[in-house]
Amino acid sequence: MNAIGVDVGGTKIAAAVVSPEGEILNEVRYPTQAIPPNRLVRTIADTITEAKGDFEVGGACVAAPGFVSSAENKVIFAPNLHEIEDIRLDRELGSATGLRITVENDANAAAWGEFRFGAGREFDHQVFITLGTGVGGGVITHGVLLRGAQGAGGELGHVTIDPDGPRCGCGNHGCLEALASGTAIGRRAREVANERPRSALGRLAIDRQVLGEDVTRLASEGDEAALQVLDETGRWLGIGLAGFVNVFNPEVVAVGGGAARAGEFILEPARREVHLRARSPSRDLVRIKEATLGPASGVLGAAALARGEDGEYVLGPSKRVT
Amino acid sequence: MNAIGVDVGGTKIAAAVVSPEGEILNEVRYPTQAIPPNRLVRTIADTITEAKGDFEVGGACVAAPGFVSSAENKVIFAPNLHEIEDIRLDRELGSATGLRITVENDANAAAWGEFRFGAGREFDHQVFITLGTGVGGGVITHGVLLRGAQGAGGELGHVTIDPDGPRCGCGNHGCLEALASGTAIGRRAREVANERPRSALGRLAIDRQVLGEDVTRLASEGDEAALQVLDETGRWLGIGLAGFVNVFNPEVVAVGGGAARAGEFILEPARREVHLRARSPSRDLVRIKEATLGPASGVLGAAALARGEDGEYVLGPSKRVT
Repeated sequence: MNAIGVDVGGTKIAAAVVSPEGEILNEVRYPTQAIPPNRLVRTIADTITEAKGDFEVGGACVAAPGFVSSAENKVIFAPNLHEIEDIRLDRELGSATGLRITVENDANAAAWGEFRFGAGREFDHQVFITLGTGVGGGVITHGVLLRGAQGAGGELGHVTIDPDGPRCGCGNHGCLEALASGTAIGRRAREVANERPRSALGRLAIDRQVLGEDVTRLASEGDEAALQVLDETGRWLGIGLAGFVNVFNPEVVAVGGGAARAGEFILEPARREVHLRARSPSRDLVRIKEATLGPASGVLGAAALARGEDGEYVLGPSKRVT
Repeated sequence: MNAIGVDVGGTKIAAAVVSPEGEILNEVRYPTQAIPPNRLVRTIADTITEAKGDFEVGGACVAAPGFVSSAENKVIFAPNLHEIEDIRLDRELGSATGLRITVENDANAAAWGEFRFGAGREFDHQVFITLGTGVGGGVITHGVLLRGAQGAGGELGHVTIDPDGPRCGCGNHGCLEALASGTAIGRRAREVANERPRSALGRLAIDRQVLGEDVTRLASEGDEAALQVLDETGRWLGIGLAGFVNVFNPEVVAVGGGAARAGEFILEPARREVHLRARSPSRDLVRIKEATLGPASGVLGAAALARGEDGEYVLGPSKRVT
C-alpha cells in the first residue's frame, strides 16, 4: 500500500504520498515561515491530510531535524522548530489524521530514501552523507538503519579530521562539517579569493559575498582558484570518507546535499584520498557517487519508514541481511 | 549447550569450551611458533579436539586476524598465518572435528565477547577498541555485529585523526593506530625521554629501549614525563572515540588490549576529549571504560559466535533489538 512521507524543515513542510515502487503520487508543501505561532503541529497534520486526499494510505512517517527519538515517536530537540519538541507526535498527529505515525531524524530518513530507491537500492551497506549548510549523514549496515541507543547516531559531520582545524558550529574544532560543508566551501573560497585576487573568484569577491554555488560555476568555467577550493574540499571529504569506509565496509557512499552539485570537482579528489587512506578490501569495493534522489530523498525515505498497524513497513520490507 | 571458541594468533592457538553463561570449562593452548610447516590447519583441528574431550559441544567458531569472510567461512588474508588463507575452514576443520565450524575476524570476536559477557553485557550498542601493537576494534549496533559488506568492517584503528600525523603501518598518515597503539606509546615515550632526560623515563631510556609497559609503571610512580606520554595518548584516543560516539551513539565504549592496562592514565584524558568533541545526547549517555575480559574476550566471543546445525547461536540468541 502507499505511505506518506513528511519532511519538516526550517523552510518548508513537505508531505508526499509514495507508492511501494517509490513513486511520488501527490505532494503538498507549506512554507514554515508562514505558520502562525503555536500552529506547527496543526499545520503538519493539515499538510498530511491534504496530501492524502483520496489516496489509500497505510501510515505516515515524519522526518525532522535535530535529535529525534523514533522509539518514543517524538522530537527531543530541534533547532528552530521548538514547537514540536517533546510532543508525542504519534498521538497528536495520529488522532488528527487517522494514520499511524512514526518519527525519524531527517538525515536518517534521507539516507533510507537513497537506500531503498536511490544510490543504495541494490546494496545492503550504505553510507549517506549530505553536504549542505552543515554536514549530515545516515548509515545503513546489514540492512539496518544505524540509529544508535538514543536515535542520535549517524552524526557523520562531527567526526574530527583535523584536531586544530577551524571551529565547528558544534563547538568542536576540525569536524568534517567545518571543512567540507557548503558553508566551509564559502569560507575557504573567500580566503582563496584574497590570496588570488586576479582569478575569476578573486574578482567576484570584490563585488559581493562569494557563495558555495558561485564556486561550482566558476570551477566549471575553468577558474583555477575555484578549482583549488573544490579540490581541497574534496580532499577533506575524502579523509572523512576513508574512515567511514574502513569502519563500515560499505558497498556505496552516496553524497548528497547542495554542495554535491559540485559533482566530480569534489568527488574525484575525495576518491583519491580514500584510495590513499582506506584499506583493502574495503577501498576496492566501495563506490563513491552522487546521491540520485536530490531533495526528494527526505519524503521518499520517510514514507519507506512508515509503519502500518501491524508494525511492518507499509511500503514493504527493508533489505535486512543479517 | 556449550560451544568452542578458538583464537588463532601469531603467538598461540587457544581453544576453549565455553558454557552458555560464558564460563570457560576447559582450555587448550598451543604455541604457534612450534607448529611445523603445513601443519597449521591440522594443529587447529587437534587443539579443538583436545579441548572438546568429553564435553558436549554444539559447534565451534575460529577467530583469526586479518581479513576474514565469515559468509564464506574462510580467511582471505592473514598476516603471518598465510597457511590458513583461502581454505574453507568450515569443511577442513568440520570433517576433522565433527563440529559445525564458523569463522570470524579476531577483533570482531573479542568485541562480541565483551558484548555478551563483559563490559557490554547489559547493552545493545557497544564500541570495542583494543590498544595493542596495533589498534583493532569491533562494533555492535542494535545488537548486530558490524561486519560490513565483505567482513572487513570495524577497522577502528584506521580512521584518520591527524592528516599529517605519523605514518601508520597501513601506509596512511595519522591513523588512530599511529597515535594511540602500544607501539605509538613506545615511540612517543622515546621522544619525550630525549626531551626530558632527567625524568625517570629519560634515565631509563639511557639504559635500554623503553617499552609501553615501562611507561605505565613509571606513570604510577609519578614520573611527569611518563604521565605526559599517557595523557597525550589518551587525548588522541579521545579524538577518535569522540567520532565513534557521534557516529554510533553507543551506550558503552570498552577499551581493551595491553595498553589499556594504563587504565585511568589514558581513559581520563580520553573522556575529557570526548566531552569536548562529541555531541549531546550521545556524549552524556556513553560510558568509556576498560574491557573486563582481558585476553579471554577472543575465545569467549568466538564461542558465542559458534552456530549449531540449525544455524542458531549455540550459546543462545544475541541481544538484537532492531
